[in-house]
Amino acid sequence: MSDIAYVNGEFLPIEQARISILDRGFVFADGVYEVTAVLGGGLVDNDHHLARLRRSLSEIALACPVGMDEVTRLELDLVRRNALTEGGVYLQITRGAADREFAFPAADVAPSLVLFTQARQLVDSPDAKSGIAVKSVADIRWRRRDIKSVALLAQVLAKQEAAAAGCREAWMVEDGFVTEGASSSAFIITRKGAVIARPLSHDILPGVTRKSVLALAAEENLAIEERRFTLAEAYDAAEAFDSSASGFVMPVVRIDGKPIGDGAPGPLTRRLRELYIAHARETATFSA
Amino acid sequence: MSDIAYVNGEFLPIEQARISILDRGFVFADGVYEVTAVLGGGLVDNDHHLARLRRSLSEIALACPVGMDEVTRLELDLVRRNALTEGGVYLQITRGAADREFAFPAADVAPSLVLFTQARQLVDSPDAKSGIAVKSVADIRWRRRDIKSVALLAQVLAKQEAAAAGCREAWMVEDGFVTEGASSSAFIITRKGAVIARPLSHDILPGVTRKSVLALAAEENLAIEERRFTLAEAYDAAEAFDSSASGFVMPVVRIDGKPIGDGAPGPLTRRLRELYIAHARETATFSA
Repeated sequence: MSDIAYVNGEFLPIEQARISILDRGFVFADGVYEVTAVLGGGLVDNDHHLARLRRSLSEIALACPVGMDEVTRLELDLVRRNALTEGGVYLQITRGAADREFAFPAADVAPSLVLFTQARQLVDSPDAKSGIAVKSVADIRWRRRDIKSVALLAQVLAKQEAAAAGCREAWMVEDGFVTEGASSSAFIITRKGAVIARPLSHDILPGVTRKSVLALAAEENLAIEERRFTLAEAYDAAEAFDSSASGFVMPVVRIDGKPIGDGAPGPLTRRLRELYIAHARETATFSA
Repeated sequence: MSDIAYVNGEFLPIEQARISILDRGFVFADGVYEVTAVLGGGLVDNDHHLARLRRSLSEIALACPVGMDEVTRLELDLVRRNALTEGGVYLQITRGAADREFAFPAADVAPSLVLFTQARQLVDSPDAKSGIAVKSVADIRWRRRDIKSVALLAQVLAKQEAAAAGCREAWMVEDGFVTEGASSSAFIITRKGAVIARPLSHDILPGVTRKSVLALAAEENLAIEERRFTLAEAYDAAEAFDSSASGFVMPVVRIDGKPIGDGAPGPLTRRLRELYIAHARETATFSA
């Protein structure tokens, strides 16, 4: 079946899903988004995604055109229309279409709301079995990386630089410290078994999967240190992984060509991945 | 008459000018743009705009879907179809529509090319007569501001902060030094009559109007210092102005509520504005 998307009140085949060229998402990147994992047809960590969406909207003073319950209903409706059992639902809200002027448009300009889905193998992911290679790149992004905006050109260039080097993800580095992946949160595990994650600030996105993974690690009685870590520490780590709605817990087995640990997915990483998948199955949302 | 836009080979009424929601300009801000002033139906500083467009495209490894002569022909065609005599023509190129993945799409994904026009009073601008008020804001943008990308959310927020304070433009400040306006290049003129402009680097956009204005100032035998200047120097300047394709040379008469000079457009600023308008009329392009 062909994919169905949602654009401002209408469900449409993806080929017909279009937006005005004056939409501020297109000309100004004036919008925010979320990608929520879909597992067994349910929404994973939905409450956390909605909370982050509300926060992103608030930080750029953008009103959501529908209530949060309606967001969930639309996501689930779209998942069902696409008969999607595993993958992700993408949602983007922009400040709408108006004559191109930088400052906010008049109050009667309606925000745009767009959704589409992507099928993806989340649980039986070949990448998760083998682990992925990561390339470090300079973090050249703006200073409000805590806002999940669509101004993603720096991330696109980082990810492309990684892909050109045969790597699946770019880990961004600033002042010697790893900030995060281009589309994931970065973690290392020390030789003593401590899980290291950079603390939340304006420097990184508050990862939804990151939050759940840290909670699961705590339940598992793993030592957790929320602190910055250097690229050198990452090279020297016993294990490394990143987390995202599209990768869950993804083992990182090489960084800049250097094997991490023995160069295979580490035991604590594999355990956290199992725990996260169980959590995702148990808590998936099937109704608003 | 209704406005006509151009989208990937078609001229359309602006209300029908739409782009796929999967366009990478919409979901990733993966694109670049130019705004060229239109005066008497001709394109102002066209060669400089084309050169900067080529450079922006090259820096993000994006191929232009048409040759530069064709860009000029399309711009002039659109200007004529809209019977536009004064204002601007907006051109945006993105990496096209493809399944949403951060890294570049397959080579057969065609870039998108979009143009529209905006009527605007450039010469007899009320703002230019009165001069404008400016608000200083923190420059929180990414590290490649020399690329004219559509990842403009920081500029949107800066401009809105200025508008909320009753100001027409935001001057962005980093490490105590003014970088540039949210959509303009920033200049001050010292009490000794020297024109001060920040030198080009990755920190600012290489302004097309800035380049012409500096050339005109040199022809006028004004002292020019390409160096960084602080916000305190700007407060204390004899005159201040900014330059852009939509404002030409725009007198700045207040910064953060403090009058610059005697709080009216300064004589050297007015002279540079006259010279720029004459230059624009003399050098406007009417054919590819």
